[in-house]
Formats: sequence, C-alpha cells, structure tokens
Amino acid sequence: MGTQPTSRMITLASDFGSPYPAAMKGVILQRTDARIVDVAHDFPRQDVRTAAFWLRETLPEFPPAVHCAVVDPGVGTERAALVVRAGEHVLVGPDNGLLLPAARALADDIAVYERLVENPRSSTFHGRDVFAPTAAEVHELGIDSLEAVDGLVPTDSYETIRFPKPELGAETIGEVLVVDGFGNVVTNVPGTELDDCEEIAVDGAVVPVVRSYAAVAPGTAVATVGSHGYVELAVNRGRGDEVFGVDPGDAVILSS
Amino acid sequence: MGTQPTSRMITLASDFGSPYPAAMKGVILQRTDARIVDVAHDFPRQDVRTAAFWLRETLPEFPPAVHCAVVDPGVGTERAALVVRAGEHVLVGPDNGLLLPAARALADDIAVYERLVENPRSSTFHGRDVFAPTAAEVHELGIDSLEAVDGLVPTDSYETIRFPKPELGAETIGEVLVVDGFGNVVTNVPGTELDDCEEIAVDGAVVPVVRSYAAVAPGTAVATVGSHGYVELAVNRGRGDEVFGVDPGDAVILSS
Amino acid sequence: MGTQPTSRMITLASDFGSPYPAAMKGVILQRTDARIVDVAHDFPRQDVRTAAFWLRETLPEFPPAVHCAVVDPGVGTERAALVVRAGEHVLVGPDNGLLLPAARALADDIAVYERLVENPRSSTFHGRDVFAPTAAEVHELGIDSLEAVDGLVPTDSYETIRFPKPELGAETIGEVLVVDGFGNVVTNVPGTELDDCEEIAVDGAVVPVVRSYAAVAPGTAVATVGSHGYVELAVNRGRGDEVFGVDPGDAVILSS
Repeated sequence: MGTQPTSRMITLASDFGSPYPAAMKGVILQRTDARIVDVAHDFPRQDVRTAAFWLRETLPEFPPAVHCAVVDPGVGTERAALVVRAGEHVLVGPDNGLLLPAARALADDIAVYERLVENPRSSTFHGRDVFAPTAAEVHELGIDSLEAVDGLVPTDSYETIRFPKPELGAETIGEVLVVDGFGNVVTNVPGTELDDCEEIAVDGAVVPVVRSYAAVAPGTAVATVGSHGYVELAVNRGRGDEVFGVDPGDAVILSS
Repeated sequence: MGTQPTSRMITLASDFGSPYPAAMKGVILQRTDARIVDVAHDFPRQDVRTAAFWLRETLPEFPPAVHCAVVDPGVGTERAALVVRAGEHVLVGPDNGLLLPAARALADDIAVYERLVENPRSSTFHGRDVFAPTAAEVHELGIDSLEAVDGLVPTDSYETIRFPKPELGAETIGEVLVVDGFGNVVTNVPGTELDDCEEIAVDGAVVPVVRSYAAVAPGTAVATVGSHGYVELAVNRGRGDEVFGVDPGDAVILSS
Repeated sequence: MGTQPTSRMITLASDFGSPYPAAMKGVILQRTDARIVDVAHDFPRQDVRTAAFWLRETLPEFPPAVHCAVVDPGVGTERAALVVRAGEHVLVGPDNGLLLPAARALADDIAVYERLVENPRSSTFHGRDVFAPTAAEVHELGIDSLEAVDGLVPTDSYETIRFPKPELGAETIGEVLVVDGFGNVVTNVPGTELDDCEEIAVDGAVVPVVRSYAAVAPGTAVATVGSHGYVELAVNRGRGDEVFGVDPGDAVILSS
C-alpha cells in the first residue's frame, strides 16, 4: 500500500455567479471540513471551452486537491458525473469535456470514472445536488480509495476537449483561445515563437515584441509572452481585443 | 445541560460589493478563528426582499453556523440589531425582515433577541461596527449561551417579511419572486403544479414543461421545476426574464 | 529574543478580476497552510491610488497578517518587490506606492525591504511569480525573521503615495479621494468639520448634514461622516457621485 496524499482542499469553479456557489459550499461543509478555495464563479456563462482553458492554466498551480468544476449547459439530461484522477489530484464535474484539458495538464496518465446519481434532488442544479456531494465524498474517502465511492465505475467513454494547435512556419497561423478580463488576447502560439524577435506582424500590422506591457507608451499595441507561455496580444493600459479586433476562435497570422 | 453544538463557521452575506466585506472579515478575525464563508456580497443594492429570498434558499444548505447578513437601507437610524436562534443556527443582522424567512426555513421554532449597540464607531457601516462584532461574539460564546452576550435581550417585536402565496386553481395566479443571474424567473408556484403536465400556458402563451433546460433547442422558452422546488420560467441558453417579459413582483398566470 | 507573533493569515488584494487570483492562491498553498482572506480583486484596473486608499482603510481592521497586494501597471519592468514591516503586519507588493499608505496607517514606524526576484517564471504575472511566493515565504519564516528571507535587503529608496490634505477654513477646499460602489463620494475632509452643522454648502449647493442616509427621503442629497471618518457626499438610495457631479481627484468646496 502506498501512502495516501492528504489533500485537505476542495477547489470550486463554475459559471454560477452568485449566490448559487454558496449552496455548493454548504453541501460540502455538511460532509467535510476541508478547506474550500474558489477558483472562479464568473466563467462566461455556459462556455465550456473557455472554462476548460482557465482550469487547465490554473489548477496545476495548486497542491494536491479535489477540484469540483461545473459549467454545464446540458444540466438535467441523463448523463453521468465524471471523476478524473490525475496524479495526486481528482477532478469532479460534468461529462462535457470541461475537466479533460486540466486533467492532462496535471498528469500524463489519468484514470476516468463515472457516477450515475439516481434521482438527484433537482434536475437544474447538479452543482449542488450531484457534483458538490461527489467531490466531498471523494475528498473524505481519499483519492486512493476512489473505488470505495458509491456508484463510481471506471469508464473509457467520455467527452473531451482539445485546443487547436497552431500551424508554425514563416507565417504562423494561430487561434485566439481566450480574452482575459484586461482584454489581453491569449493565442495558442508558443511564446518561443517570439524568441529573438524585435517586432512581428499580426494579421499584417507590425507591433513591437516586448517583455512587459509597460515597456511601451500607454495605448501602444504589443506582442508579448503571457503568463501561460503563449503569445499574447495586448495594449499597455488598454484592451488588446479591441485594438487587434479579434475574439476567441478567430485566426491570427503572425509573420516575422 | 445539553451538549453544545460546536459551530466553527460564520457565513457572511450583504449587498456591499467590494471591498467593504473585507473590513467585516478583519473585525471578525480579531475575535475568532472561525471559518468564514461568503454567501454573496452582490445582492441587489438595498433590496431586502430579494436578499431575504436567497438567504432562505441558501442558508439551510449549511451545517450549524452563525450567519451574518446585512442589507440595510436604514443603516444609522436608531434600531437594534437582531439575533435570531433557529435550531442550531443563529442569524445576525438588521431588524428589517431580512433574516426571518431564512430563520423560519431553518427551524419551526425560533427565538428572537435584540441588541442595542450604543455609539457604534460609525453610523453608516453597521456591518463592520455592529453586526460583524455581534456575530463573532455569538460565535465565541456559543449559540447555547446567547443570554451571555452583552446587551442581548429577548424580543417579540421585530420586522418580518412574508412572501406571497399563489392562488392555485385551474388558473393559478403566481408571482415572480426573483430573477437569477442566468435570467431564470423564479415564481412562488410550487413545482408540483407541473406534475403530469406536458405543456402549460404562461400568461396565455403555451410552453413545454421540461425536466431540464437542455431538453429543448437553444432559444426555446420552457417551464420547469427549479432547484428551489418552484416553477421556473426559463429559456435554454437564453434569458427567461427577457423572453417572458417579467420582473420580480409581477404576476404570472399559469393555466393547463 | 522577543516572542514571535503567530500570524496564520495572508490577505490578498488586486485588480486581477478572475481567475488570476486563484493561481496566486495555489502558489501560496504550495508553501503554507495559512488562512487566505480576499480583500478585493476588483480594484479599478491599474489604478494604484484608489487601491492604496482602500488598503489603508481596510487592512487596519485585521489582526496581525501578511498582506499581499498587487495593482501593478508596470509589471515586467526591472523593479524590486517591496516588503514592508508595519508593527505586527507585513505588506508585500510592487514598489509603486501602493503599500505605503496602509503601512503608515498600521504603524508609526515602518521598515522597508526590497527583493529582486531573478528570472521570474513570467514577465506579465508577478502576482503569481513574485509577490505570492514572497508573501508565503515571509509568512512561513515569521515576520520577526524577515532577514532570513532569501534576497531580502533593507532599503530606504521606494515609491510612495500621499493623499492630499484639505485646506480647512470658513471655506474648506477638499478633494474627492474615491467613489465607492454605492456611489458615495469619499472626500479628504475630516468628519469633525461637520460637527454642530445642520447643513453645509457643497460647491455652493446647500445640503443637510445627517447621521445616516436614511434620515432623509429617498433621492435626497446629504453630507455625512462616512465609515472612514471623512466627509462623505451621498444620496439616500441613490448615487452621490452622479447627483454631486464629481469624480475622484475633483475639488469640492465646503462652506457653512
């Protein structure tokens, strides 16, 4: 028997806004005294893809934990809850692809389980009635005892999300993955593509390549390497999405 | 002597936005090391009724706790703080009806106390200067020792809020209680009114009755039973309040 | 050797919105099991001055703690992190003046250190890569062992912010420091200037001086003493900034 990692932490993420996450916390605190950490509850409504991106970028910062994440446009249909073990972490949420990018970022090998909760209290708030109690039970039993969680069975049939890869070359064709709250445009192009560049053309318009937003005058558009390691299009003290005129999903062509 | 429930938790709810709740947390943490859980701090400004609804729906999810809730348009006038014992829970807040629906949902029998705090530090931020310290003191003394809290006296004179009952019948006349952040319209009509219905007329327009939003195509209006157990008017991936054209307080007529 | 205060608390404040603060929390929880308390993450974007004001008003409510605050338009430029000891508190953040008003409010004597973090993981998210780890290390070593933090050196060269003083007199010339989320206008004029006043002229328009917003009819403009102890211009159930027509930085002339 290996030693059991002692996560004492459940993270919560959703698009629920307020006050629905509080109901999830109450349900969890009925079952465990684990620390609860909010990741975000203002993910764009019902946008599974954007939430999956942020979970992938954020959850690996945490020590071993149970992560309960819910962005679930399909709530209420007949569908199992997913429980994914990734290294010393466990992710709990809907089977719509939301959890998979983060799971793969947390560990090379993952084990996926499903749990069909019969007759949940509601058909519209599985965050409270399915996912939060499952996360609490997984936490209390310990992540090395997943097989002891009532109704949890291994599965190899589940939804996934994969983010597009850029086409690298003299002209690199990338895609906007997300825009953050500052208006910074996060692309899928690795930051290393900017190595040794002093400037770069973005969709034909040349902008300086800088290490930081403040390296240029306020209002100036730049390309930089964002905190995720990707090429980011930004404007010092302004909004990159507006100046570059791009939205998530749009293609961007970078040429040096 | 009975055993004393050991709540180690204070929940906070307000319409204060940010950063005022942090001052309340500091004041509490000067007095106790209880866990602090935010319920919401973005209740609609000075809307006691809506906050009372959400507290009633959310606080019963929690294990025994001291709940400090402040939505208080009348702050600064001469008025006692209210402390309500409801089962193993205690609620602390202004005497304007805010706490009562939740208290009655938590326990059949409640005991109400008032506390006149003399010369609070400010006349505009009783959340920090009256309610938070009272919640911390109640928590530290234990909810079986309310009579030991300085200045706390039983009262049977206090404000209350009661939500309207629907008129049930072949034509049910209900009322919109709140609209949530998704635009879902929560009425006061019990969900059981939809039992065995395949469709229902809402103010004359017929919509399907479904178990989940995703049972219909995006953009389709539906009636469903919400997570609170009431009839909810919603639109799959859209806003029910806009499509049904109703606001809190509006009447809705349901006929099968 | 003195006794060491045992802060078990790290507060976080930023203009990061969501979900960036979660990455900071993960980084901290990798290093310590201290309690984490959010002060605010919705400070106006890149507005160091407003954030400095709120930190000054809020942090003194807390028991001894390590306070990590980041509003940092200059992120990524070569600049040391600042670590400020103020009594039993320590503040960690960028060297742009943000921390100093709060530090001076916490203690008469402060000791300022700087820490140059070499090659942080990113040049755009020092909250995660510089300030959060520094706060965690300071917390774990204890605030009486700041000299043990790797790379921390005393400095007497750092940015500061000082809020303007009003010109008191028969006609007092004050300045608007901030507007809060309710629209209340917080000036730099001490509340004692309203002592024994029944009314006061604000930029020539006479308004009543009241102890609380609710002392007047809804929609009525008033002057009152805010929770910070300053003269506040407000409107009962309305927005003072709109009715008085002022923004942060504007002068206001008070005459009795």
